[in-house]
Amino acid sequence: MRVQSVVHILSLLLIFEGIAMLLPIPFSLYYGDMDYIALLISAGITSVSGILGFFLTKFDQDLRPKEGFAIVTFGWISFSLFGSLPFLISGYIPTLTDAFFETMSGFTTTGATILTNIEILPHGLLFWRSFTHWLGGMGIIVLSLAILPFLGVGGMQLFKAEVPGPTADRLTPRITETAKILWSVYALISLAETVLLMFGGMSLFDALCHTFGTMATGGFSTRNASIGAFDSMYIDYVIILFMIIAGTNFALHYRALTGDIKSYFRNTEFKFFLSIIGIAFILVSIDTFTRYNVIPVAIQDTLFQVVSIVTTTGYGTADYEMWGFSSQVMLFFLMFIGGCAGSTGGSLKVVRIYVLFKFVLSEIVRLVHPHAVVPVRIGDTVVPRDALTNILGMFITFVLLFVLGVLIMAGLGLNMDTALGSVAATLGNIGPGLGNVGPTDNYAFIPGLGKWVLAAFMLIGRLEVFTVIILLSPSYWKK
Amino acid sequence: MRVQSVVHILSLLLIFEGIAMLLPIPFSLYYGDMDYIALLISAGITSVSGILGFFLTKFDQDLRPKEGFAIVTFGWISFSLFGSLPFLISGYIPTLTDAFFETMSGFTTTGATILTNIEILPHGLLFWRSFTHWLGGMGIIVLSLAILPFLGVGGMQLFKAEVPGPTADRLTPRITETAKILWSVYALISLAETVLLMFGGMSLFDALCHTFGTMATGGFSTRNASIGAFDSMYIDYVIILFMIIAGTNFALHYRALTGDIKSYFRNTEFKFFLSIIGIAFILVSIDTFTRYNVIPVAIQDTLFQVVSIVTTTGYGTADYEMWGFSSQVMLFFLMFIGGCAGSTGGSLKVVRIYVLFKFVLSEIVRLVHPHAVVPVRIGDTVVPRDALTNILGMFITFVLLFVLGVLIMAGLGLNMDTALGSVAATLGNIGPGLGNVGPTDNYAFIPGLGKWVLAAFMLIGRLEVFTVIILLSPSYWKK
Repeated sequence: MRVQSVVHILSLLLIFEGIAMLLPIPFSLYYGDMDYIALLISAGITSVSGILGFFLTKFDQDLRPKEGFAIVTFGWISFSLFGSLPFLISGYIPTLTDAFFETMSGFTTTGATILTNIEILPHGLLFWRSFTHWLGGMGIIVLSLAILPFLGVGGMQLFKAEVPGPTADRLTPRITETAKILWSVYALISLAETVLLMFGGMSLFDALCHTFGTMATGGFSTRNASIGAFDSMYIDYVIILFMIIAGTNFALHYRALTGDIKSYFRNTEFKFFLSIIGIAFILVSIDTFTRYNVIPVAIQDTLFQVVSIVTTTGYGTADYEMWGFSSQVMLFFLMFIGGCAGSTGGSLKVVRIYVLFKFVLSEIVRLVHPHAVVPVRIGDTVVPRDALTNILGMFITFVLLFVLGVLIMAGLGLNMDTALGSVAATLGNIGPGLGNVGPTDNYAFIPGLGKWVLAAFMLIGRLEVFTVIILLSPSYWKK
Repeated sequence: MRVQSVVHILSLLLIFEGIAMLLPIPFSLYYGDMDYIALLISAGITSVSGILGFFLTKFDQDLRPKEGFAIVTFGWISFSLFGSLPFLISGYIPTLTDAFFETMSGFTTTGATILTNIEILPHGLLFWRSFTHWLGGMGIIVLSLAILPFLGVGGMQLFKAEVPGPTADRLTPRITETAKILWSVYALISLAETVLLMFGGMSLFDALCHTFGTMATGGFSTRNASIGAFDSMYIDYVIILFMIIAGTNFALHYRALTGDIKSYFRNTEFKFFLSIIGIAFILVSIDTFTRYNVIPVAIQDTLFQVVSIVTTTGYGTADYEMWGFSSQVMLFFLMFIGGCAGSTGGSLKVVRIYVLFKFVLSEIVRLVHPHAVVPVRIGDTVVPRDALTNILGMFITFVLLFVLGVLIMAGLGLNMDTALGSVAATLGNIGPGLGNVGPTDNYAFIPGLGKWVLAAFMLIGRLEVFTVIILLSPSYWKK
């Protein structure tokens, strides 16, 4: 492990985080809140820590994939540690456990909250809380389209060729180039959403915060009642549209913005993604339509919750725990699907679910014709053997981790629904789950140990499982 | 498909089933019940159907693997259809849905019941009900150790070399030889259990019925309170011992009986099986020990329920739904493990869980060393590539079917716990589940469609998933 180089990069990232903490300050001042002080102090501590780390280490050797895993995992952890300072220093979230949980939930674009009353927070903190989503989303897009393909994690090597950029063997130049392109796309679409939300009557502050939450498929709101608080059909549909956009591969958006609109409909994963939303909408509607008096409202609410869960956003406009068991079970399983690869959506990802189905079909054909060669394809592309086993490995690990998590949470005294819901919602980076962590509840009551476990699950789920798990393997640390 | 040959074999099996229906009659007569009439009529219908089928078809061509799948699947279905006749004709289970569910539950060694009061059934029917378990268990042992290895289902080819016998390429002679050996072992151990249970004060009738339920890891009892009705520490521990024996690979018992006792402890799967029981016992004890006043009783009850669930038997001596959430969740996940391959236990099987763990570890090592070759091993044996992908395929299909089942059951109005519990308990062939199908409940209240779905899940789970699923594939039916 080239520790110096790793710490060097992490320090550079911290300087960047410190600067980012200054952004909420104008809102704090505008609304006459006092939280700008906590933000200033936090920004200071974070940047100085970064600067110290930066100058005390040197980037003496280039990075190998091995260092990549460490930078990504420890990057998210250090961002969450320093990012919780504004909450701690201001006193609005007085314990490290809660502040770390909330910030990890932000940077992993999960959206699970320990706050029982969001609206008492001053504007600077609310902005920072939502802004952690947006920064996390930036990280995820670059991670999934530029870094993980080279690390070979979770079959992401399938997407190596998706984004243009120099195809050098060394990681750094390609990542930088790709990152610039993708971030422009991300920023441009975010701008569009902010403007559209302001047309719907939101203040600039609310529009920005909810854009951050949508584009990162995060789910933090500035209101206790989430998007439901705005009670606007227009806003609901704008958010639905942008949740779908955020759940789509950003490489496709890049192509569309450069003129190739049709690339969406040549993409097998995107078509499968829309089909999943469509089918889930119909199946949930069978139940919800009997519960609403006005069909357009039923459509609006059903579509919103389905899209919110599939894309792993977690915004709410209706309490699906008041719906039938079939709808709840449906939404629960949707939590395991998630967005497209290369989107900000979490969980297993649509393409992996697709590959799992194709793999099962290929195994059935292979039983009928034992000597046939039956490759798994996505569209016309044959999935290479190592990408396939990596996807299978990730799925199995995801399931095993889920089981482990539910056992731990039940061991801490949570009932079955809550244990299942809390682990699914954190591992899949959704936010609200089932039982006592449903859409109208929060994670405040979870025992301290449970909050740390769930925070770890957010990180593991967000970083495609293996990026984190690999650091626990002895073979990783062997020279 | 060589239909004539398939029907010919199925008819032969029906003649055998018809004869088997005569066995309960002495008990009916001894206890002065009237159900011998229904049993006689059923035996007549079944044998005559078998004889007709046998003489109207001829075994004109030898069997290929393709026909193997059909014989196994339709064999279990026709046994369950004809096997439900005694319940229907006697009127004790008046509807085909319920009678078929109960009989399929018997032959698949599941043990889920639709009876709300078992004890009103006459002795002949009770004996037949338990006897379907024992016959199903006979079928499963031969299926898993002699037939499936040649069909390449679920990685069972790993065990091709486990049992001695002629190694001809054609299926029939080898199966016949292997079956004889294994059935002798099965009968011998069953005899031992019957004698031991009679020492504990059971009547011959109860001892036989509970031996059938134990040795097949079935779980049908003659009492409403299951094994708890006998309230005997001795009987509890005898049943615990024989549940473990029934959950162990019968090839190991064969070796032990021919002098090689040590083969148990050279077997990786068996050691892993005992470890799972040990760890589960300890984890559940943490909760149960706080709930009992007398520690020996806590040990006895905890060990019994853990072994009963891991081996997929489903007998009960305590209501685990009165235990803590952690115990219930633990037992729920144990339902997915099951016994050893080549045992009468159901679910995924210990060896597959072991292979899944080893596969995940190998994927992690492969991420650290992308060019390393990291084979998955069981003990010293490298798992061949096709056996590995088959195991992965079965696991994924099992999980997908579980999700599908829970969605269907929730769609029929079952609550989350009951939907999860009923599907896990039927797909894994356990019997009692969670929620409203817990250890003190029954399946009577499930809507008709739900009973058929669950019966299908029992069959799919019992026949290692692919044996049934393959028949739904278009490529199977193509010439």
